[in-house]
Amino acid sequence: MNRAQLFEQIKKKNSYLCVGLDTDLAKIPKHLLSGPDPVFEFNRQIIDATHAFCIAYKPNIAFYEALGPRGWESLEKTLAYIPKDIFTIADAKRGDIGNTSGLYARAFFEQMNFDALTVAPYMGKDSVTPFLTFRDKWVILLAHTSNPGSSDFQLLESALGGRKLYEEVLLKAQQWAGPDQLMFVVGATQAEKIAGIRAVAPDNFFLVPGIGAQGGDLKLVSERGMNSQCGLIVNAARSVIYASAGQDFATNAGKAAQKIRNEMEVLLNSFR
Amino acid sequence: MNRAQLFEQIKKKNSYLCVGLDTDLAKIPKHLLSGPDPVFEFNRQIIDATHAFCIAYKPNIAFYEALGPRGWESLEKTLAYIPKDIFTIADAKRGDIGNTSGLYARAFFEQMNFDALTVAPYMGKDSVTPFLTFRDKWVILLAHTSNPGSSDFQLLESALGGRKLYEEVLLKAQQWAGPDQLMFVVGATQAEKIAGIRAVAPDNFFLVPGIGAQGGDLKLVSERGMNSQCGLIVNAARSVIYASAGQDFATNAGKAAQKIRNEMEVLLNSFR
Repeated sequence: MNRAQLFEQIKKKNSYLCVGLDTDLAKIPKHLLSGPDPVFEFNRQIIDATHAFCIAYKPNIAFYEALGPRGWESLEKTLAYIPKDIFTIADAKRGDIGNTSGLYARAFFEQMNFDALTVAPYMGKDSVTPFLTFRDKWVILLAHTSNPGSSDFQLLESALGGRKLYEEVLLKAQQWAGPDQLMFVVGATQAEKIAGIRAVAPDNFFLVPGIGAQGGDLKLVSERGMNSQCGLIVNAARSVIYASAGQDFATNAGKAAQKIRNEMEVLLNSFR
Repeated sequence: MNRAQLFEQIKKKNSYLCVGLDTDLAKIPKHLLSGPDPVFEFNRQIIDATHAFCIAYKPNIAFYEALGPRGWESLEKTLAYIPKDIFTIADAKRGDIGNTSGLYARAFFEQMNFDALTVAPYMGKDSVTPFLTFRDKWVILLAHTSNPGSSDFQLLESALGGRKLYEEVLLKAQQWAGPDQLMFVVGATQAEKIAGIRAVAPDNFFLVPGIGAQGGDLKLVSERGMNSQCGLIVNAARSVIYASAGQDFATNAGKAAQKIRNEMEVLLNSFR
């Protein structure tokens, strides 16, 4: 999916919500566990209930990998089930030497046909560029993440120019790819910094995790981070997919997604 | 496997060689491709031919992930086939927010029973510590990698203390775990820096990729990086496993591994 198509979806649905498919056998409703593929069945019902309110799905690959080969089968079935006009993000945080990143790119972009993959920047340019050779596929590079440990290295200040590491990542990566192929991960818990980050990367989409369970503020993020093409994909996972644990889990997930979409509709009209 | 057991293996085999199982269907001998599981069959014969000369195997997870669910099956079979006294490293370069890193840890340490996992440091402490809660399991944290892009961010100099990012990683990570649980990735192509890195992390094992196809110098790395318990695990992948592409591929891989082991035996006696 290209940038224009993504923005079309945002306008059509008045939403920039991404639903995180962090599907955990320990958390899904018990009545699903007796079926042949509980993970896919949970995802299928969540997708049915939420797809009208979101523009992206983001399976967190760890949850599938933890189940071994059958987890990868559940993931492939889930991806095939997601409607074609919804953007798909493999949250895998990959990144390795060039020939290895090339293999990860084939796994996620060809074997599984995701639109985008999250990538860690530590190994530099040749760990990222192999993901950029696929038409209408996206790298979402970690810049400033939502977790407590984000301050350990991302905030280190460089002697050259006084920029922080995450600012160096934002600047250098823009030499490798334009905003039609490159997004950045910017945690919602970094809301106070998001205006500064937008100034450094005016045109790129930001994938924003951290609202809901992690405590980020949707209004503040939107006010400070939006650009003329929205420029934000805001992820909610646990607060949507585990809205309830009963037979009605999907209905309640749909309601939780709709509530966020309704807030987003107002914010889109206020700040865009 | 704990540190004492690892050092015992090194002394017993006079080797600190790790064979990288970067098994690629496009590169393995053609006569294997007609079998039911060519990747496992290749690995099985490589392990038979090389296990006397190496103390570790390191499957590069990307090569298996690129094959989808059947790749994970080949990986599990390979891991089960590796002799129990050989150290096993999942080269996966994972790292995510705490609950997600916890899932990756379960996948690689419980589901698959690897001894060690490579981890990327960008997301900081809470992305690393979930891997440290398993007895006799190891984190191998990226410090200074072997690829060209290693200079993009790893060499950024901090305003505070003038240390480079990879030095900050070496120092800070040692506050999270001791040398019985924590190793560092230090590329052989960084041989001129390895004495300095050893000074900052005197007791930790270093996993050293980059000899062979990437051009690093085994003698230089050993001279500058060894400590009293060897402290090095040097990886060779392509130069061993693809030593030849014919029916005799395993015999030639064995010879290539033995040749490196013989060099290591001399170096162990010279510098330890």
